[in-house]
Amino acid sequence: MARESRLATNNLQLFDLPAVSDLIRTALAEDLGRGDITTRLTVPPDARATGTLLAKQDGVLAGLPLVERVFAALGGRVAIAALAAEGDALVPGMRVATVEGPAADVLIGERLALNFVQQLSGVATLTRRYVDAVRGTKARVVDTRKTTPGLRVLEKYAVRMGGGYNHRAGLDDGILIKDNHLVAAGGVTAAVRAARAGAPHGLKVQVECASLAQVDEALAAAADAILLDNMSVADMTDAVRRIAGRAVVEASGGVTLATVRAIADSGVDLISVGALTHSAPALDLSLKIQLA
Amino acid sequence: MARESRLATNNLQLFDLPAVSDLIRTALAEDLGRGDITTRLTVPPDARATGTLLAKQDGVLAGLPLVERVFAALGGRVAIAALAAEGDALVPGMRVATVEGPAADVLIGERLALNFVQQLSGVATLTRRYVDAVRGTKARVVDTRKTTPGLRVLEKYAVRMGGGYNHRAGLDDGILIKDNHLVAAGGVTAAVRAARAGAPHGLKVQVECASLAQVDEALAAAADAILLDNMSVADMTDAVRRIAGRAVVEASGGVTLATVRAIADSGVDLISVGALTHSAPALDLSLKIQLA
Amino acid sequence: MARESRLATNNLQLFDLPAVSDLIRTALAEDLGRGDITTRLTVPPDARATGTLLAKQDGVLAGLPLVERVFAALGGRVAIAALAAEGDALVPGMRVATVEGPAADVLIGERLALNFVQQLSGVATLTRRYVDAVRGTKARVVDTRKTTPGLRVLEKYAVRMGGGYNHRAGLDDGILIKDNHLVAAGGVTAAVRAARAGAPHGLKVQVECASLAQVDEALAAAADAILLDNMSVADMTDAVRRIAGRAVVEASGGVTLATVRAIADSGVDLISVGALTHSAPALDLSLKIQLA
Amino acid sequence: MARESRLATNNLQLFDLPAVSDLIRTALAEDLGRGDITTRLTVPPDARATGTLLAKQDGVLAGLPLVERVFAALGGRVAIAALAAEGDALVPGMRVATVEGPAADVLIGERLALNFVQQLSGVATLTRRYVDAVRGTKARVVDTRKTTPGLRVLEKYAVRMGGGYNHRAGLDDGILIKDNHLVAAGGVTAAVRAARAGAPHGLKVQVECASLAQVDEALAAAADAILLDNMSVADMTDAVRRIAGRAVVEASGGVTLATVRAIADSGVDLISVGALTHSAPALDLSLKIQLA
Amino acid sequence: MARESRLATNNLQLFDLPAVSDLIRTALAEDLGRGDITTRLTVPPDARATGTLLAKQDGVLAGLPLVERVFAALGGRVAIAALAAEGDALVPGMRVATVEGPAADVLIGERLALNFVQQLSGVATLTRRYVDAVRGTKARVVDTRKTTPGLRVLEKYAVRMGGGYNHRAGLDDGILIKDNHLVAAGGVTAAVRAARAGAPHGLKVQVECASLAQVDEALAAAADAILLDNMSVADMTDAVRRIAGRAVVEASGGVTLATVRAIADSGVDLISVGALTHSAPALDLSLKIQLA
Amino acid sequence: MARESRLATNNLQLFDLPAVSDLIRTALAEDLGRGDITTRLTVPPDARATGTLLAKQDGVLAGLPLVERVFAALGGRVAIAALAAEGDALVPGMRVATVEGPAADVLIGERLALNFVQQLSGVATLTRRYVDAVRGTKARVVDTRKTTPGLRVLEKYAVRMGGGYNHRAGLDDGILIKDNHLVAAGGVTAAVRAARAGAPHGLKVQVECASLAQVDEALAAAADAILLDNMSVADMTDAVRRIAGRAVVEASGGVTLATVRAIADSGVDLISVGALTHSAPALDLSLKIQLA
Repeated sequence: MARESRLATNNLQLFDLPAVSDLIRTALAEDLGRGDITTRLTVPPDARATGTLLAKQDGVLAGLPLVERVFAALGGRVAIAALAAEGDALVPGMRVATVEGPAADVLIGERLALNFVQQLSGVATLTRRYVDAVRGTKARVVDTRKTTPGLRVLEKYAVRMGGGYNHRAGLDDGILIKDNHLVAAGGVTAAVRAARAGAPHGLKVQVECASLAQVDEALAAAADAILLDNMSVADMTDAVRRIAGRAVVEASGGVTLATVRAIADSGVDLISVGALTHSAPALDLSLKIQLA
Repeated sequence: MARESRLATNNLQLFDLPAVSDLIRTALAEDLGRGDITTRLTVPPDARATGTLLAKQDGVLAGLPLVERVFAALGGRVAIAALAAEGDALVPGMRVATVEGPAADVLIGERLALNFVQQLSGVATLTRRYVDAVRGTKARVVDTRKTTPGLRVLEKYAVRMGGGYNHRAGLDDGILIKDNHLVAAGGVTAAVRAARAGAPHGLKVQVECASLAQVDEALAAAADAILLDNMSVADMTDAVRRIAGRAVVEASGGVTLATVRAIADSGVDLISVGALTHSAPALDLSLKIQLA
Repeated sequence: MARESRLATNNLQLFDLPAVSDLIRTALAEDLGRGDITTRLTVPPDARATGTLLAKQDGVLAGLPLVERVFAALGGRVAIAALAAEGDALVPGMRVATVEGPAADVLIGERLALNFVQQLSGVATLTRRYVDAVRGTKARVVDTRKTTPGLRVLEKYAVRMGGGYNHRAGLDDGILIKDNHLVAAGGVTAAVRAARAGAPHGLKVQVECASLAQVDEALAAAADAILLDNMSVADMTDAVRRIAGRAVVEASGGVTLATVRAIADSGVDLISVGALTHSAPALDLSLKIQLA
Repeated sequence: MARESRLATNNLQLFDLPAVSDLIRTALAEDLGRGDITTRLTVPPDARATGTLLAKQDGVLAGLPLVERVFAALGGRVAIAALAAEGDALVPGMRVATVEGPAADVLIGERLALNFVQQLSGVATLTRRYVDAVRGTKARVVDTRKTTPGLRVLEKYAVRMGGGYNHRAGLDDGILIKDNHLVAAGGVTAAVRAARAGAPHGLKVQVECASLAQVDEALAAAADAILLDNMSVADMTDAVRRIAGRAVVEASGGVTLATVRAIADSGVDLISVGALTHSAPALDLSLKIQLA
Repeated sequence: MARESRLATNNLQLFDLPAVSDLIRTALAEDLGRGDITTRLTVPPDARATGTLLAKQDGVLAGLPLVERVFAALGGRVAIAALAAEGDALVPGMRVATVEGPAADVLIGERLALNFVQQLSGVATLTRRYVDAVRGTKARVVDTRKTTPGLRVLEKYAVRMGGGYNHRAGLDDGILIKDNHLVAAGGVTAAVRAARAGAPHGLKVQVECASLAQVDEALAAAADAILLDNMSVADMTDAVRRIAGRAVVEASGGVTLATVRAIADSGVDLISVGALTHSAPALDLSLKIQLA
Repeated sequence: MARESRLATNNLQLFDLPAVSDLIRTALAEDLGRGDITTRLTVPPDARATGTLLAKQDGVLAGLPLVERVFAALGGRVAIAALAAEGDALVPGMRVATVEGPAADVLIGERLALNFVQQLSGVATLTRRYVDAVRGTKARVVDTRKTTPGLRVLEKYAVRMGGGYNHRAGLDDGILIKDNHLVAAGGVTAAVRAARAGAPHGLKVQVECASLAQVDEALAAAADAILLDNMSVADMTDAVRRIAGRAVVEASGGVTLATVRAIADSGVDLISVGALTHSAPALDLSLKIQLA
């Protein structure tokens, strides 16, 4: 995480992806509809406002660049100054950023800006808790494809800001042979061979194993990575011993904060946690606005 | 909710909204990228599969129509049969729907279909818990604009499936004068008057009040609805008494399952809960697949 | 209108709506196709031009901000200076704005810029005539959903610039129970009750009545607003008397400049006029260009 | 027009253009917003409806295929049967089409379907009046680029249904050298030559002339077509005589129903009329609905 | 070509067409996917780079403005300076442009920028070879509709930069009656008449002829242009003699660099060559990058 | 290739990707513009046509499913029957598919359908020639990111149909550390380490080496794959010997049909060839149409 944090500006290109600017436009359209009636009727056009983004809970910051992009999409009349960096630990009352511009713009964009930064900071915060729980082991906490439809690239970025690592981003940037693929292909050996024969050479071949027998078969077929599906910690420990560094080992299935440490102690390389993205509560931040 | 449940098919037009089909396409593109490599390499093109969508937790179903839409967007070769209705209570092991089609299609669409129904059922389930907590009072549980960017119309639908009610959907279909609007407009009286003077006649004028004095002023200005912002239950009870039916009364601010009943007992008409949409954990459902 | 006029810049956020910038892009693509051949072949690339937007008829200005947006979408090389404000009365020969930039850009964007401002000023102008016709009564002139597909938010803005008021913008920001809904729901009482039971609390419930008996029923069911559908002026007067301020009263159906005053004198609150948007002739304005 | 009428089905490909289906989606999104609340709350999901599209004024039909496309975009559950053909003369009370399907769908799509067919029939109707006014002369009535932003291809289709002809559809499918191009290029001769030198060979070169001297110069430069800009009928007659068939002759500028016949009698080939598309009032049609 | 070259900046409006900026966004999304992982992990965020675009083959430059647009779409942090003009002849080692900006941006945009300029310069280069081959004859080299899907407007621009001329850009900006249209319409005379009767007056009527008999018939029907389809040079010479300037004459069908001169010597006005756009190899250019 | 050929239908999901259907719509809009004037004016609406897609050169088929998708996007009134499979060898005169439907539809969609299948078959054909040239060696022919903007996923599919293999599809589904990344990161060791530390575990780390010294350094840093950049065959042979199976070896840089065999004989695993996609000439196919 420290490393990612230092490279945080390098993640800025992420926010220039066409899909991200499309999402911002879509989300603005969703909230504004045909325009903010309340603001039109009550806020004088020449009123200006300043605002301070404040943390109201302990957590980890992620998504601040989206605040700037939201106001840019609204016409670019609001200036943002960051007072904290992505990945920073937040404590209640901490000032995260300031905004300044026409009062109408600030009020119109406030909700969407907050929704983005609260949701992503929520993901980063929950990730950090898992990362802290396995500290001292070799295990990395990784995300899954159980993300909010439309927000995957952002949520996976938030996982990195929380100190986690990314699993594949979709069905095209990784090969993960699951139970049903195994049945369709005719077993572990056949499936791994077919994948190795046809896959782009930059992709490793990972296979999901539900038993130690499958683990042995996967090793024999020279799988690059093995996912241990819903195994007991005892079996995981055994699997790690058998694999002995010949493949990357991932633990998966119903991992919680209560169980993650024991799993990490089994010696696996990776622990994937769906909850990072599908069940992280929003982190509370607020925009304190003052009208000039 | 019973009423909504009976009218559930009437909500089907919701899933024909251009914004909803755009979201499905976007989310498919996000997950598929340039296509599912694993499936291409391991699943024979003529393999077929059946699947059963199963509940794995207690909860409330919402979003099943999206499962059908996801597979329709994938080429329409997978047939879905619903075994439960939107808004139905789920128990672990309950069969929710079946799917049947080419194995490749089923495997490619599985994750997105699950992501949708898990997230929306999560919202419906949390809503139901709040609704149950206030049962017997006159209070309605309502949502907020604190929704996931891009999913608002779906999340607000899920709130209804859980037995909740909708607040405005955006900045254009309701007038809600908040603290900053009050400052900009010059106080409660001026703001309410300006809103009444210019608003479309189909919209009520709601004003946020942080004190009983503001409540009195809002009543004098003939506001249609009053939002009590972060008041104590005692003040809320007092406010309800003063308002005496002359305006709709909404309680708002930091409502939790622990506090919602006491708030409802104050006599307010509505209790808005941001957590319904910003912090509902996903409900666990799985697709059990069998290859033919 | 005076009020709207003073707040006109507050309407500027309207022109930042994604739907509006999408419309401008679509309309540019429609007119330019693969590019302006005539200009490419006859105008030297370094030629510059100035232009003056002139009124050629009496009317009301609306849509000038779109002129700027059209040239912005063309590359932003043309500067616009407004010489009149939205909602201003125009007389033949009056200078409305100046433009300055590359001759090719000015010539390429001219037609679309004019089409926008002529159409919207046409709507504002016709609206102003209706507003003038009812001056001194309490009646407001309101628009309908009979707008040009794709231009509703702009045409409804033009209605406001003409001094009119907006009815709901779509099917989602207002409840209007029409004759067929009444039949489906089982009559006025049942329909109003169902609407009140399920509607977001920010929306009033309006019901269309074709007879005084229905008006009485709507009042008994506590409808917030009543639309008198194609009633005679005598019946409208009677209805207003019966309603006695307990609901907002709207007159609707075949209203013309010849009949609107008599209708207003019946005491109704609102008169909706489809012609404002579906039959307003364009207002004549021209761009007088000079090449440097 | 008779010819177009016989070929009317050949125009159906027009309604498959991506731009047309995009417009329908955009217009649906504009009207539905987040969905039709009134219908959701008052219409039982199993109610069905039939409807008859009726003419309420004398006029010319155009746009009926859009009615079908609107309901197709809504989910395709409503069936349409045409009782009249595009370009047919309408009289009050004439039945134009029937619709049948779920009551909710019919009610939700009704307004947009009507808005399309009313606007396009309005254009066709006004065009027919101009065409009738010049009957017996050789003059064709043609449209301009003064169309509603976003609707040009449809409005130009409606002009054809009214018996008119199309001018170029945009800046790329025709060469029309106007006064400012002449100044930029250095006069009629230079401009026509430059255009002839660089234009695709499928495009004729038309030049706008404000004087008989310019007409002579255009002829000398071998322009294919000449636009007489705001000339008196006497000058037009003189111009036609000079041109003597060596170029197509178009009259343009402020043409009205009162003046069009005299202009046609001058012998010009084409008379372009901006009002066909920028100022045609909607034709009144209604959808009479019955619930089953 | 010299003329086009001087007017090259006038072509800049081409790169502001919505379709072109959409293509750039689409192509960026295609290459970036969810973002450049290699650059994120290896390039420090504050590293800066300069680059020089170099020609590595003899050829003709086209598409340099797209380099600027690609980096603009990436966030606008990279500055481009052109050292050569569109249409210029390139020799190996020639410096074409320089870029300067954040190293990450330069590396992320490099490939797409090169893909555009290499492909378009390839088209311009092949066109120039055909143009050179017919130098001294009256024949113009023209393109066809056999272009890469999605890139037509750019490829046709590249043809112009190579000294060629454009045929129609699509099915709507020119009339070209081909063999199957002739069969459908009932022969040359009927088809040409139908086209003349209904076509916009700015479009010439061109007809494809496979025999000298058809040429005679086309002339009799007063076709504006005649396409000689796959005729021998002898027949083409005969056709040119018969036509005698009464129609524009285009040779078409399997033209190669080996045959184009003999065809030009037959006296035709135009020679259309599909290979210009469907089979031009990319021109080799590279971006030499240096990190600061 | 045989394997891909048997799995060819599994590639069908590719043609359901949102990006592919968007491309087809965009390309149709590009060619149709506002509609096919020639067909509208010359083809009777009730005429029907059949067509046969014929090979006119030796080559390899790719892209036939796009023919069906093009006509589907045009309204779905044309039926296609395939007579050959993707990846099949074609000889002149061979029948590839038949089409049947309204003559207007067939004529309107013909060009785009052909453009797709000709371009993709051109890529498949050139790929097959490279594959044949290295037959008997262990080397795989792989593509690059030097593809036509907007068509990458299709061109990479065509490479597979030709018997080639895919390199990464974009910047996000593979890690390839190039010369400039090396400079930015501080050398091979630092760059490979940084990539291994942060990369998703499903991605291999490939590094470009310009010298044998760099190859040694890459091996020491445990790179998964090594790209030999523009090395002589002698150096490549040496590199392969040093690497000795510890990393995948790719040869890259200016590979031609004349040089590819010698490179393959050096023992490399992969040979990447930019020309497969940036310089493949279209394969000649035609649609022979008959009107009923």
